[in-house]
Amino acid sequence: MKQQERIDDLQVNGLKIIQNPKGFCFGIDAVLLANFVALKQNAKVVDLGTGTGIIPILLAGKSNTSHITALEIQDEVADMARRSVQLNRLENRIDILTMDLKEGEKILPVNTFDVVTSNPPYMHPEGLLNLEDTKSISRHEIKCSLEDVIKTASRLLKHLGRFFMVHRPQRLVDIMYYCRQYKLEPKQLQFIHPTYGKKPNLLLLECRKAANPELKILDPLYVYEETGKYTKEIYEIYGKRMLEEGRDD
Amino acid sequence: MKQQERIDDLQVNGLKIIQNPKGFCFGIDAVLLANFVALKQNAKVVDLGTGTGIIPILLAGKSNTSHITALEIQDEVADMARRSVQLNRLENRIDILTMDLKEGEKILPVNTFDVVTSNPPYMHPEGLLNLEDTKSISRHEIKCSLEDVIKTASRLLKHLGRFFMVHRPQRLVDIMYYCRQYKLEPKQLQFIHPTYGKKPNLLLLECRKAANPELKILDPLYVYEETGKYTKEIYEIYGKRMLEEGRDD
Repeated sequence: MKQQERIDDLQVNGLKIIQNPKGFCFGIDAVLLANFVALKQNAKVVDLGTGTGIIPILLAGKSNTSHITALEIQDEVADMARRSVQLNRLENRIDILTMDLKEGEKILPVNTFDVVTSNPPYMHPEGLLNLEDTKSISRHEIKCSLEDVIKTASRLLKHLGRFFMVHRPQRLVDIMYYCRQYKLEPKQLQFIHPTYGKKPNLLLLECRKAANPELKILDPLYVYEETGKYTKEIYEIYGKRMLEEGRDD
Repeated sequence: MKQQERIDDLQVNGLKIIQNPKGFCFGIDAVLLANFVALKQNAKVVDLGTGTGIIPILLAGKSNTSHITALEIQDEVADMARRSVQLNRLENRIDILTMDLKEGEKILPVNTFDVVTSNPPYMHPEGLLNLEDTKSISRHEIKCSLEDVIKTASRLLKHLGRFFMVHRPQRLVDIMYYCRQYKLEPKQLQFIHPTYGKKPNLLLLECRKAANPELKILDPLYVYEETGKYTKEIYEIYGKRMLEEGRDD
């Protein structure tokens, strides 16, 4: 393990992850996305912009049989993800590729994957001072745009393959527009609200390639009770110990 | 007044409306839309698919100065709306035109209106038995599609003019896609939920013509408390007597 890094216990099947507290650490969005993804036996999965590898590691924890290819553009972040994969002895099931996701369709076989997942950078890069900073690249659309993510997902998926993404509701117009444009028809949408009565600050989306239009909106998910405690739903998704150890930033 | 028709008191500034209980009567969606619309002094407004005229009449009730042109394709429905306008002595402020809204841009001056409103038919017409039935035409996309409404709104609005619409969340992809395509950039979006924990069944949307992308999601609006009573917010929008007389179908 490198200086500044730490190992966190994911509290699921003994899984662990290496993170650098000075860099981008995974948040509740990654956990919610992994929980939202439906995987069939032997599914072939790609994760676009995998960061610490949290999504493939959590997905490997919930399904025994799928194989996951995870793309990450940043060398040192991809290296850390690869070491997390080794730490969990998942080398046979997860490949971390150091790669620009925009190159994905040149290197991976197109029209073949069952599932694509992504927890992409959420924010426009306007006004950022340091465009090469690791944390900035994980959070802002510096190396790839939302359109790049959606276009690549569409190219990689097989007919009727599924795309799962977590993003911010403020980007809803862009998300819907590009998904429709690149033939990833939105099928299920869930909004995550910090609490009752507050506007949503995250959304979970499932699209199917070339499917007929028919969007199902799911019941909203609330993170906190009005008392400030986590809701029952969040406890069920997260596992109690993980929450109490405070790694849900 | 014709047979089967009745006059309902809107409980706002003494306004009244003629409705036919066998036809399409206005619902909570129209009241929420009228409440959602922001009108400046002397605003020139068009309402697309006005039905009973409920939107222009409620808008006239909340602003003294604007002029509203309302389009309705169905003869007998437009006639009823015109009589409601007379009943409220609003002939100088509201014009009801019996007209296909798709013809709007040929007859009305384009690129000039400050505000366009619409509570359009929500549903695809699949499987409908009677495509000429008044209620079916008000509820289903028989005479106009969602794309027609958005395209016409965009043509009629001036630069940075505002489009306000109420619709179903299931049509979110179509709404976002066509609004972006026809340069009506979604700026504010509010979801209406029947109660806490249930998925939204209506949405209110404000777009601005040719504006920069930046969507603001508003706090959700809940119609009922868990006890089955209306929420405070709904009482404030509706007025207490109107609710208790049960005209919010």
